[in-house]
Amino acid sequence: MSARIGVIGTGWWATRAHLPAIAANPDAELVAIADPDEANRSRANEVFEPPAAYGDYRDMLRAEQLDGVVVAVPHTRHFDIALDALRHDLHVLVEKPMVLRSDHARELLRTAAERGRQIIVGYPWHYNEQVNRARDWIASSAIGDLLYVHSLFASIVWELYRGDVELVAEEMGYTVNPTGRGTYSDPALSGGGQGVTQITHSGALLLHMTGLEPATVFAHMHNHDLRVDLVDALSVRFEGGCLGTIGSTGSTVRTQEEVLEYR
Amino acid sequence: MSARIGVIGTGWWATRAHLPAIAANPDAELVAIADPDEANRSRANEVFEPPAAYGDYRDMLRAEQLDGVVVAVPHTRHFDIALDALRHDLHVLVEKPMVLRSDHARELLRTAAERGRQIIVGYPWHYNEQVNRARDWIASSAIGDLLYVHSLFASIVWELYRGDVELVAEEMGYTVNPTGRGTYSDPALSGGGQGVTQITHSGALLLHMTGLEPATVFAHMHNHDLRVDLVDALSVRFEGGCLGTIGSTGSTVRTQEEVLEYR
Repeated sequence: MSARIGVIGTGWWATRAHLPAIAANPDAELVAIADPDEANRSRANEVFEPPAAYGDYRDMLRAEQLDGVVVAVPHTRHFDIALDALRHDLHVLVEKPMVLRSDHARELLRTAAERGRQIIVGYPWHYNEQVNRARDWIASSAIGDLLYVHSLFASIVWELYRGDVELVAEEMGYTVNPTGRGTYSDPALSGGGQGVTQITHSGALLLHMTGLEPATVFAHMHNHDLRVDLVDALSVRFEGGCLGTIGSTGSTVRTQEEVLEYR
Repeated sequence: MSARIGVIGTGWWATRAHLPAIAANPDAELVAIADPDEANRSRANEVFEPPAAYGDYRDMLRAEQLDGVVVAVPHTRHFDIALDALRHDLHVLVEKPMVLRSDHARELLRTAAERGRQIIVGYPWHYNEQVNRARDWIASSAIGDLLYVHSLFASIVWELYRGDVELVAEEMGYTVNPTGRGTYSDPALSGGGQGVTQITHSGALLLHMTGLEPATVFAHMHNHDLRVDLVDALSVRFEGGCLGTIGSTGSTVRTQEEVLEYR
């Protein structure tokens, strides 16, 4: 029996990643999609041909018999929608950043535990062979105790945070979201810039690989010409006394490779 | 006419670096040495044969006609001795870390300016060709504006901070200071560990190369089994808005190379 899946949000990432993955997975069945944006919804409907398509995801949750949902909507909507899905006793894959407030994260985990459902975040790097090899080495103390860790992530997303998304399409090989849409540039939709959009990847991977738990964090951020942060510099004390620095900038020049380093 | 130099402190570093450099320099003349430790003083006296040797550097400053002094004593003594030398109208080369308090640094600079004398800090890396090439590129904006910088310095000095100096002699190729002496392990002499002993190098080099001026700094430190800090993690906002992370640990294993990286 395959898992009956609903996809909430059918923008660029759902149509590029989640919907093709569901279509390719013999153990998954696309039951319905939901998106308030008619253009997005129609495009996904034509390509992926779900049995049903909804403007309001709540109508989908009420009407359909689902096992789980994918939540791929602007950052500021993650919490409400994921919580709603869990309360309908559904498993949830919510895109990164999971939520924008720690109390929201705890509420989702608590609700998932109460309902006996899984909630996972869309971090693809967590499943790389080399990441899990490093994780095993660290967990087994094969490389000794961790006293200091550093993560550097430099990416080419400045234009994205400006909302000039067509300008990065060529470098990235795809259009990230429709021109003029503020998914990443407008704090009301994104909740922030480099921190929640990119350090969510590199920081989550650092924690996944090391098993470290942050205790106290200091951070400097700078927006430059944006409404969201472009550069971040963190100093972290982890439980047990390991210290770390986490740095990230979206300002890498468009002719350069993305940089992701751990030390 | 050669510069008449007095050397204050004739421990391992003065005898390894400064005294040989003065001996090799036709423009410099070693006039006197001063060290309250009789063993240190006798050893330096035998090898470098200065015209005079003093137990108290103040006697040297009063008795000798000097152009400048080298101050190579434990960290906590740098300020008083350098200030005293400047007030005797001498040029000063003070070892790193210059001083342990910012108001002390400002007082030395102010006194040097008032007396028309130079004060420089013993940072050898500042004079490397590649460092100054990078400095020129940055100053000329050849690599664009600086938005984020990172410095990592990992060194094999844990044993030094423990006072077990003989243990590192083999790796370093020389005895750093006599066993049992607390120059680096005792906060009353060192004023601290990795921060003032090692980040003073990497942080100073970062500022020298970039021309950046720190505006606000957050830091986490951890001593582990020491009386001084072994690991440091800093988040820095520089004037103009560039952000930085600076990380350093003295815990590199003894079979590994020292690491000094800039990003």
